Amino acid sequence: MRLTRKVKEILSFYESDNPGTKANLARILMNGRLGGTGKLVILPVDQGFEHGPARSFAPNPPAYDPHYHFQLAIDAGLNAFATPLGMVEAGAASFAGQIPIILKVNSSNSWSIEKDQAVTASVGDALRLGCSAIGFTIYPGSEHFDEMVEEIREMAEEAKAVGLAVVVWSYPRGGKISKEGETAMDVAAYAAHLAALIGAHIIKVKLPSDHLEQPEAKKVYEEQKIDISTQAKRVAHIMQSAFHGRRIVVFSGGAKKGESSVYDDARAIRDGGGNGSIIGRNTFQRPREEALKMLDTIIKIYQGKE
Amino acid sequence: MRLTRKVKEILSFYESDNPGTKANLARILMNGRLGGTGKLVILPVDQGFEHGPARSFAPNPPAYDPHYHFQLAIDAGLNAFATPLGMVEAGAASFAGQIPIILKVNSSNSWSIEKDQAVTASVGDALRLGCSAIGFTIYPGSEHFDEMVEEIREMAEEAKAVGLAVVVWSYPRGGKISKEGETAMDVAAYAAHLAALIGAHIIKVKLPSDHLEQPEAKKVYEEQKIDISTQAKRVAHIMQSAFHGRRIVVFSGGAKKGESSVYDDARAIRDGGGNGSIIGRNTFQRPREEALKMLDTIIKIYQGKE
Amino acid sequence: MRLTRKVKEILSFYESDNPGTKANLARILMNGRLGGTGKLVILPVDQGFEHGPARSFAPNPPAYDPHYHFQLAIDAGLNAFATPLGMVEAGAASFAGQIPIILKVNSSNSWSIEKDQAVTASVGDALRLGCSAIGFTIYPGSEHFDEMVEEIREMAEEAKAVGLAVVVWSYPRGGKISKEGETAMDVAAYAAHLAALIGAHIIKVKLPSDHLEQPEAKKVYEEQKIDISTQAKRVAHIMQSAFHGRRIVVFSGGAKKGESSVYDDARAIRDGGGNGSIIGRNTFQRPREEALKMLDTIIKIYQGKE
Amino acid sequence: MRLTRKVKEILSFYESDNPGTKANLARILMNGRLGGTGKLVILPVDQGFEHGPARSFAPNPPAYDPHYHFQLAIDAGLNAFATPLGMVEAGAASFAGQIPIILKVNSSNSWSIEKDQAVTASVGDALRLGCSAIGFTIYPGSEHFDEMVEEIREMAEEAKAVGLAVVVWSYPRGGKISKEGETAMDVAAYAAHLAALIGAHIIKVKLPSDHLEQPEAKKVYEEQKIDISTQAKRVAHIMQSAFHGRRIVVFSGGAKKGESSVYDDARAIRDGGGNGSIIGRNTFQRPREEALKMLDTIIKIYQGKE
Amino acid sequence: MRLTRKVKEILSFYESDNPGTKANLARILMNGRLGGTGKLVILPVDQGFEHGPARSFAPNPPAYDPHYHFQLAIDAGLNAFATPLGMVEAGAASFAGQIPIILKVNSSNSWSIEKDQAVTASVGDALRLGCSAIGFTIYPGSEHFDEMVEEIREMAEEAKAVGLAVVVWSYPRGGKISKEGETAMDVAAYAAHLAALIGAHIIKVKLPSDHLEQPEAKKVYEEQKIDISTQAKRVAHIMQSAFHGRRIVVFSGGAKKGESSVYDDARAIRDGGGNGSIIGRNTFQRPREEALKMLDTIIKIYQGKE
Repeated sequence: MRLTRKVKEILSFYESDNPGTKANLARILMNGRLGGTGKLVILPVDQGFEHGPARSFAPNPPAYDPHYHFQLAIDAGLNAFATPLGMVEAGAASFAGQIPIILKVNSSNSWSIEKDQAVTASVGDALRLGCSAIGFTIYPGSEHFDEMVEEIREMAEEAKAVGLAVVVWSYPRGGKISKEGETAMDVAAYAAHLAALIGAHIIKVKLPSDHLEQPEAKKVYEEQKIDISTQAKRVAHIMQSAFHGRRIVVFSGGAKKGESSVYDDARAIRDGGGNGSIIGRNTFQRPREEALKMLDTIIKIYQGKE
Repeated sequence: MRLTRKVKEILSFYESDNPGTKANLARILMNGRLGGTGKLVILPVDQGFEHGPARSFAPNPPAYDPHYHFQLAIDAGLNAFATPLGMVEAGAASFAGQIPIILKVNSSNSWSIEKDQAVTASVGDALRLGCSAIGFTIYPGSEHFDEMVEEIREMAEEAKAVGLAVVVWSYPRGGKISKEGETAMDVAAYAAHLAALIGAHIIKVKLPSDHLEQPEAKKVYEEQKIDISTQAKRVAHIMQSAFHGRRIVVFSGGAKKGESSVYDDARAIRDGGGNGSIIGRNTFQRPREEALKMLDTIIKIYQGKE
Repeated sequence: MRLTRKVKEILSFYESDNPGTKANLARILMNGRLGGTGKLVILPVDQGFEHGPARSFAPNPPAYDPHYHFQLAIDAGLNAFATPLGMVEAGAASFAGQIPIILKVNSSNSWSIEKDQAVTASVGDALRLGCSAIGFTIYPGSEHFDEMVEEIREMAEEAKAVGLAVVVWSYPRGGKISKEGETAMDVAAYAAHLAALIGAHIIKVKLPSDHLEQPEAKKVYEEQKIDISTQAKRVAHIMQSAFHGRRIVVFSGGAKKGESSVYDDARAIRDGGGNGSIIGRNTFQRPREEALKMLDTIIKIYQGKE
Repeated sequence: MRLTRKVKEILSFYESDNPGTKANLARILMNGRLGGTGKLVILPVDQGFEHGPARSFAPNPPAYDPHYHFQLAIDAGLNAFATPLGMVEAGAASFAGQIPIILKVNSSNSWSIEKDQAVTASVGDALRLGCSAIGFTIYPGSEHFDEMVEEIREMAEEAKAVGLAVVVWSYPRGGKISKEGETAMDVAAYAAHLAALIGAHIIKVKLPSDHLEQPEAKKVYEEQKIDISTQAKRVAHIMQSAFHGRRIVVFSGGAKKGESSVYDDARAIRDGGGNGSIIGRNTFQRPREEALKMLDTIIKIYQGKE
Repeated sequence: MRLTRKVKEILSFYESDNPGTKANLARILMNGRLGGTGKLVILPVDQGFEHGPARSFAPNPPAYDPHYHFQLAIDAGLNAFATPLGMVEAGAASFAGQIPIILKVNSSNSWSIEKDQAVTASVGDALRLGCSAIGFTIYPGSEHFDEMVEEIREMAEEAKAVGLAVVVWSYPRGGKISKEGETAMDVAAYAAHLAALIGAHIIKVKLPSDHLEQPEAKKVYEEQKIDISTQAKRVAHIMQSAFHGRRIVVFSGGAKKGESSVYDDARAIRDGGGNGSIIGRNTFQRPREEALKMLDTIIKIYQGKE
């Protein structure tokens, strides 16, 4: 497997990492149909932890089976599959070496009152299960933000020492942030920047709206005439906030929605210079054939063919 | 690199430290255009963590790129560059050995309700990234002060054992301290003294005003006729409070402001016997050429040429 | 250095301690002009942490310099010098072996709302800095008392294993204790007894008044006709409460006051069988010559010459 | 300190190392009069351990003092100073930050019957003393070679994790190697290659002769017509054996000898593409002025001026 | 206890040590009748381990009692007492704080076939017993030299971290060294230098003869015309070999011998600039009064009075 010039350039941004971490990033970047393009589509399946099984899988019952998701990610030619410990354990041997796995090491659940997540797996788990990365969610704005940061700080140091990559889901919520503010442009850019500053290799944020939440930030956006009028421009601003594009950023699609909306999102990510999509419910809650077709289209969008 | 008499004198104040820590202090004191004078100008870039990327970098968009700051500090001939983990990781290899790095190991953010900071990096990170020091913020006055002190106590002991230096940002806030009180003379002197007592090698405080916040302290300042009528005299009183000048103290300039105000600050620091400036937004939020010109003037002020 | 019969007797009370701890107690008891008498005068300089530098040192500006205090304690012929980490670090090499040091490992500050102290140093720090003891403050009565006790429990166990002595400042405050009650006879005796029970080798309390704070205690003092009518009798009662004199107790002088009052205190401590004085502000806030003269008189009082 | 293109190229060869190790390599490569050229002159003073003090220092008695060597290396503008623990301890604070130190962590002595060395210092010592690298000798050919390799393996892993560089002295001896074979072309090339293979950043070997020791190797050298007819060509072959020049190799001069011979060696190293000289007895056994003059000439040779 | 100028100068040589180690060196240097002069007399009692009790103590039966030796060292006004674990344990509490103790942590016995010693105590023992230093014997020349060095390397690093001093007995024997060679000038100088290089604070060697053992060394001594014609000159050469006098060296007297011979040795040590004597059998094998008289004379010799 020869790395493309694009992937080499991306790897060069991770200049403080050891070859183990670089190799795992390379595996993710080179896998699947987008391998080598610098673009990624990742399948995340942690909805069961957050919303329970029926809300997650009843619309497409074969998805109750962990193997279903491994197979879907492989068959669709995706870059990686991200999921919590138990689901990795349920398929990691059968699919060993077939798709890069991101072990999601913390998760929240429907009954959480606090804006916090439980740590559910370790760096050691990631190694024994053959994962390429750990995934961790932080909640900027939450009163538990500091604790979450201190947890990932320790796990990230450990992960980097043993050659794993670190993926951070940066989801603003709680505290003074309004519901609309969770996806506000200023908030999302800030969330991406925080993830970069705490040492994430790959950052996952939600696609931002053109809302501006924080008064002091709003003033700056207006004074500096930062153009956030289109989704693509907003994606570009996120990339800028992620160390001027030196960190890989993937965007999540959120709740299940119409196909064209999903494709529009992907086109905006592509046009804004984002690295790709992390797309869960919109695929595994659809019948397999439909999901494969949708993923095929998304991949083609990132390839510039749609 | 031969040490100057001045630097040797400063190093002699750190009489309990091992040669490793002394060597790192020497590296900071001998680097750049002020190398050897006992004066320092440090570039801190942690605004992104505290205020988000747009508020920090939109006024000068090249500054979104971490490499911009490493290069600015080097080209301006500064003594050191201070920034959080992710930004160090993004440039530490490209600029290895080119400028002493202070790894800022805790940070706050705009949404924090508590006057506290999250620990975001470790002594191990500082070693693997080739840093000369760790930097840690304490908030005297805050209800989280004790926790913060206990965090830095443990990290400082570890850092000193492996030959790193310890820089403490001592920023009074929270609790009973009024907004005006945060930079009050008595409060700032107390903040510097606290940092010295917990074992800091380099202390960062804000330039104090002539306001006196605490009634018991006010009484003493008046009784003892402590002259705090000029900025230079206030700086001198801070130095006195930092073990009679046995600890290096640098002063921060605060929010972006007019050039002449920045220069007046530097002259007061110099005339009061302070060790220098730690100046972030006032430089990286200006266009590079303007920032370099400003830093050139500041350096000349410390050299006694302006 | 031959131990006197008196010092041997005192050391015999510490029958469960290892020779390392005994040697450090002996060093403290044998040092200075009172060496060998079983009496002690200790210089504590933690006012800067508690009240800030100006309130502590402005009345006698040379005292801003940590070396001033080391030299004062040595020149006055005192038994030991007690101070927080940073001040020890600033002089421990210059004065290595010249005076026993008690590393004060926790401290409060003027802004503390809670009746608690931050831990600022470790047993490892005490060893590397050549200290003879760690010093720790507890606040009987405070809602944080249990935490403080648990902190010193752990540190004391560690200190005793490596041959250090443990000094406990026992200062009742907070909770249900009235301002007057903080120095009440029953409260002070209780505070001394608590310190003894948690394993202190040397106990520091304030000189008690004849006030009785706790109704149940008051009843007993009256029923049993405990004579607390003079300061010397109150000191004797404290000694009784400190394991019948099996623990060293030193008394603090509090805020700066008139000379004759200081001498009266010392005579009462001597006559009541107390072990000595821990006297800070009353010495370092006076000009050096005056302080040396005062300490000379205090030492003569303990020697029975004044 | 801006790195030169040459130094950046050399650092790029150490692609698996963390920025800490790169920074220490950069410090060595950028220090002194050859700083930035990619050439190095290192002062090693471990003769006292190997041959005793009189044989080492009697010809130039001021050299009995450890400070003499620190000062000589600094005044001559060398890149680094390499010596065992005690000599580092005797000067590391006085010369903190003035010259990169290589802590020699194993040493042999005149009475050793075994071809082995004692480990005399640790990675922790290197950190507390502010060293840039550890130095370790292996004896290819010795019956103790495997043990020595296993010792440096463990220390090198630890050193690399904390950002230190690793220098390996590779000196064939013992076992089946003849006296003449110790500097044979095939043996020296093999020794350099072994050091590279066990993970050395900087390799020290002796200048090879044109003797070929091993029959199987001799056959290949002859068949492949490897030109080893001049010292420069032999140096070039060593560089080739050190990963095609991807590892820094410095050559030792051996016992004290005539000046012109020393200069001829340096020219051959330069012309063959070697990185420089590690030159001990030939300098410190001469009077200081003579040594400085000789080092000046050697530096000029590497600068291409002589 | 105020340090003398001489002791301050000696402490300045230990520039890489922490204040704890400096304080313990100061305690040894300031104790007893020679306190402050930079001269030392140390009582070592490890003969029982080496030769058995009768050979050690039968000539003076009170010496079977460990307390006898503590008391002798105190009554004679010596600087320190050095002995193995059990003897320290037998008296450390009774004599706590009365005399600095050097815990001898390895020992040989009469039945040893190997030239090696057993490690019999730890740094933890030294701390719990209140010792100021650990003492360790190395046998340069022995086939076990490397193992011994590796043992003390590890213990010394640990001791220095907790503020203890390290005393090394450097006794050449075994291997190729002849009986006469054990005290040969070249061998003794080499032994002192090796102890300095492995990081000893205090070095103990035997007084050398004018024999030259090693042919290569002999050549240098003759070529360089090193004057070793008198005992004082030989002592001076040892001091030179101990980092040009930067390390404390004490000389042992060997087996019991005539008084005038003991005094001649002391005068030679004094005149050659040595730091003092470590004198065991010659004192404890004599009746107490005789021993005290002899030690009194030795002390007077070091004071320049005899």
